[in-house]
Amino acid sequence: MNKPKNQTLDPQDWESMRELGHQMIDDLIDYWKGIRNEKIWRPIPEEIKKSFNESIPQEGQDPKAVYDDFKTTIFPYNKGNVHPRFFAWIQGTGTPLGTFADLMASGMNPNTTIGEHSAMYVDRQVVNWCKELMGFPSDASGILVSGGSMANITALTVARNAFGEGKIRQKGLVDYGKQLVLYCSTETHACIKKAAEILGIGSEFVRNIPVNEAFEMRSDLLRDQIEADLKLGLSPFAIVGTAGTVNTAAIDPLDELLEISREYGLWFHIDGAYGALAKLDPVYADRLKAIEEADSLAFDLHKWLYVPYEVGCTLIRDAKKHRDAFAYTPNYLLQESRGLSGGLDSINHYGFELSRGFKALKIWMSLKEHGREKYAQMIAQNNRQAEYLTQLVLENPYLELMAPTSMSITCFRMTQKGLTEEEIRNLNREILVRLQEEGIASPSSTILNGKFTLRVANVNQRTRFEDMELLVEEIVRIGLTILFGEKNN
Amino acid sequence: MNKPKNQTLDPQDWESMRELGHQMIDDLIDYWKGIRNEKIWRPIPEEIKKSFNESIPQEGQDPKAVYDDFKTTIFPYNKGNVHPRFFAWIQGTGTPLGTFADLMASGMNPNTTIGEHSAMYVDRQVVNWCKELMGFPSDASGILVSGGSMANITALTVARNAFGEGKIRQKGLVDYGKQLVLYCSTETHACIKKAAEILGIGSEFVRNIPVNEAFEMRSDLLRDQIEADLKLGLSPFAIVGTAGTVNTAAIDPLDELLEISREYGLWFHIDGAYGALAKLDPVYADRLKAIEEADSLAFDLHKWLYVPYEVGCTLIRDAKKHRDAFAYTPNYLLQESRGLSGGLDSINHYGFELSRGFKALKIWMSLKEHGREKYAQMIAQNNRQAEYLTQLVLENPYLELMAPTSMSITCFRMTQKGLTEEEIRNLNREILVRLQEEGIASPSSTILNGKFTLRVANVNQRTRFEDMELLVEEIVRIGLTILFGEKNN
Repeated sequence: MNKPKNQTLDPQDWESMRELGHQMIDDLIDYWKGIRNEKIWRPIPEEIKKSFNESIPQEGQDPKAVYDDFKTTIFPYNKGNVHPRFFAWIQGTGTPLGTFADLMASGMNPNTTIGEHSAMYVDRQVVNWCKELMGFPSDASGILVSGGSMANITALTVARNAFGEGKIRQKGLVDYGKQLVLYCSTETHACIKKAAEILGIGSEFVRNIPVNEAFEMRSDLLRDQIEADLKLGLSPFAIVGTAGTVNTAAIDPLDELLEISREYGLWFHIDGAYGALAKLDPVYADRLKAIEEADSLAFDLHKWLYVPYEVGCTLIRDAKKHRDAFAYTPNYLLQESRGLSGGLDSINHYGFELSRGFKALKIWMSLKEHGREKYAQMIAQNNRQAEYLTQLVLENPYLELMAPTSMSITCFRMTQKGLTEEEIRNLNREILVRLQEEGIASPSSTILNGKFTLRVANVNQRTRFEDMELLVEEIVRIGLTILFGEKNN
Repeated sequence: MNKPKNQTLDPQDWESMRELGHQMIDDLIDYWKGIRNEKIWRPIPEEIKKSFNESIPQEGQDPKAVYDDFKTTIFPYNKGNVHPRFFAWIQGTGTPLGTFADLMASGMNPNTTIGEHSAMYVDRQVVNWCKELMGFPSDASGILVSGGSMANITALTVARNAFGEGKIRQKGLVDYGKQLVLYCSTETHACIKKAAEILGIGSEFVRNIPVNEAFEMRSDLLRDQIEADLKLGLSPFAIVGTAGTVNTAAIDPLDELLEISREYGLWFHIDGAYGALAKLDPVYADRLKAIEEADSLAFDLHKWLYVPYEVGCTLIRDAKKHRDAFAYTPNYLLQESRGLSGGLDSINHYGFELSRGFKALKIWMSLKEHGREKYAQMIAQNNRQAEYLTQLVLENPYLELMAPTSMSITCFRMTQKGLTEEEIRNLNREILVRLQEEGIASPSSTILNGKFTLRVANVNQRTRFEDMELLVEEIVRIGLTILFGEKNN
C-alpha cells in the first residue's frame, strides 16, 4: 500500500489564524464593554433568515470569510442575556474570564470523563467547591452537567435506583411492579415532570401539591396526598422541594418537607436550579438551610454564578448510592494504575454521559478571579435590585404587583381602571414585545392564578439599580402610548 | 430604600482583559502549531495534584494571576487528544477554528432553546446539515446533544414513548404492564444498557445477541431471541444496530436488522456515535446505506467531524413522534408571535435539556471552513491509515493482529513464542503504559475473546501515515526492552 499525501484540517497559515483569534478577542471585548449602549434585541431580517436555509457547504472557504459571515448574520442578532437589562426566563450574563476559560477548555479539548490528566482534578475540585458552597458534607458526591434539567433527572435517577431494594436498575419497573409516586408542587419546574416521564414513572404519578398565596407548597396537603396514595397501595418514593420557583422565586417550606420525607422514608430532593445559590445572601440563608440536609440537590452555575452556558451541578449526599445508580466498566474503559489510563474514578460512573467537555474550568477560573465573597455580594445585589423594583412598582399608580417578591424575581403588570382581564393581558403582551422590539429591556411573562403578568428575573451581573428605574419608566411610557396613542402621551 | 453602590463582575480594566485574551490566543496557537514535537502525555507532579485539594477561594485575584495558575497546574497536563499520535478510546482532535467558534459561542452566551435569535436558526441549519450528511429525509427531526450517550438515550426515549399506544409517557411502565425488550449485540456500547436502565426497562431486558468472528451481530440469533421473547409474553420494542463498535469498529448487518425490525414492527435505532460519518468514505458507504432507513440515529461530531467537545446528534425519522416524546409548554415558556419570545419551535420539545449552549456554532463554522468534501477525505484518510497500520502489523514478526480491521480501529499486540496468555497481557499493558509515560503515543486497550489487546482508534486530523510507522517501531522497541532488558535491545 502506498502512502498518500498527508492531509490535515490545521491551517496552512498559522499566523493568519492567530490574527483571526486576536480579532475575535477584540470584537468580544468591544461588544461586552459597549453592551450597555446597544439595543438588547433586534429582529433578524428576512434575507438573513433565508441564508440559514442554505444546504451543507460542499467546498471550504477562508476562515476569515467564515468569520465575516458570522459577523453579518449571527453576532448582531444575539439573544441578549449578556445585556444589563435582560430579565427573561432565568438566564445568567456570563463574564469575560468565564468565556476565556471556555476558550482554553475548548483548545485543550479533553474529554473529561476518564484518564489521568489535569481536567479530571479540576472537575473534582470544582465539585468539592460546590459541596462547600451548599454545605454538603465532604464525603458527598456530585457531578457537573449541562444545567438544571439534567441535574434534576440525574438526582431523580439515583433516587429511583436506590429505591426498591436497588433492583430497579437491573430488573426494571415492570418487574418491580409497584407504582412509584413523586411529590412536588403546582409551581415546580416542568423538568421534574419530564424526568418522571423519562424514568418510566409516568407524569400521572407526579403529584402537584397546591401552593399557598405565596406560591409555596402546602405541606399539610402534601401529607394528605402521601397518606391517600399509601392507602391506594402506591409507592411514594421522593419529594421534590423547590428553592426558588421559576415563576415567582417561591421557596417551598424545606424544613417541613425534609421532616415529612424522614417520617415516610422518602428521598428528599431539592430543585435549586435558580435559587440554591441565594444561600450566600444572608437574607435567605436561614430559609435555605435545609439544603444541607437534602438527599440530593440540583443547581445551576450559568444562572447565579454567572458563568457562561452551559453548566449545572447535581450533589448527592450518599456517594455510594450515586455510584451504584450508574457505574459499570466495560473492557474498553479498563483503568490502569499508571499512565494515561490511570487516575481518578471515571465520571461516567456518576451520570448519563461518557463524552464530557471541560466545563469545570470556567467555574475554577471564575471563583479564583472573584472569590466566594464577591459572588455573595453579587447575588445579594440582584435580590436587593428586585426589592428596589418592587418598591418602584408599589409606588407607581399604573402598576400592580402580581406576586410577593422573593429573591430576584418580580412579577407585576400595568393596569388601568375599567380594563377587562383580556384587555390587561393584551396591553401587557404588547408592552413586553415593544420593550424588546425597541431594544430597551427583555423581561418575560407568565400566568399567575390565571392572570397574565410581566416577570423580571434578575441573575444579571451587569444590572444597575438605575436600570430598574428605567424599566418602570419605559413600561409606563409604552403602556400609555398603547392606550392613548402617541399624541396623548 | 437607598440604592447601594452598583457592583459588577466585569473587569475594571478592559484593556488588561483584552491583553489576557490575546495572550491566550497566542498560547493556543503556539501549542497547536508545536504539538507534534511535544510529549503526548506527562504525569502530574504530586505537589500540583495537592493544589487541587485546596478549598474554595474566599478572596479574588487578578485574572492574569489566575491564568498563570492555569498555565502552571493545568495546561501542561492535558489529556492529549489534540496530539497527532492520540489513539485512545475514540476522541477527536478538534480544530483551531472549531475552538474559536466555541470562544464566540461562549461570548455571545445564548441559551439556545427558546426565543427569536440567531443561534436558534444556526442550530436548526446544523441539524438540517446533519440530516443531509446522513441521508435522512428533510422532514425528519433532530437535536444536538453532548455526545453519543445522550444521543442514544434521547432516541431510545422516543422509541419507548412511541410504543405502547403512546401512553407510557403519562402512565408509566408499571401501568403499561408489559415488559419491554431491547436488542443489541455483545459488542454494543455500554451506554445502551445505561439508557435501558434509566428508562426503567432494566438491563436484564437488554438482549446482547452474540457476534460472528468479525464482531458483527448474528442476525439469525437475533431472530431466534425475538421469537423466544415473544413466546414468553414479553414485548420486543427496539433493535439497536451499531455502525462502528467501540472495540473493533465492526458494523452490524444493518440491512438485515432493518428487515427484521420491519418484520416484527420494532423501532430500528442505529448507534453510529463513532462510525456513522464513515458514510462519507466511499469504501464504507454501501455498508452504511441502511442508516438512511433507520427510525433513529445517534452520532458524534466531536469524533469524526473533529469539532471540539462536546457535541453529538440524534436524528429521528418521524418528527411528530420525536416532539410527542418530550413537548410540553408551561406558562413561563409561552411563545409570542413577535419579539424575543417569538421564533422557532423551542428545542426543549425535542430532548432532555432546557439549558443548552450554542454548540451548533462550531459545526457551522467548521463545515463552512472546510466543506463536506474535505471531511470526506479526512475520514477516508483515517481509514486508510488504519489499513496501513494493519499492513505494518501483518508484516512485523513481533506483532499479531487481534481483530479484522474495520474503519479506523486496529487491534493488535506484541507476542513472543513461549509466553503464556498472562505474560502477553502483562507485556502489552507495560508497553501501553510506557508509550504514554515516554510521551510517544496514546493507544488504549481492550479485551477481545478474553485476550488483552492494544487498540488504536484513529479519529485524528493531525495523524500522518508516518505516525503509524513510528508507533509500530516504538511498540517493538519498548517490548523488546521489557523482555530482554536495555542491554539486549
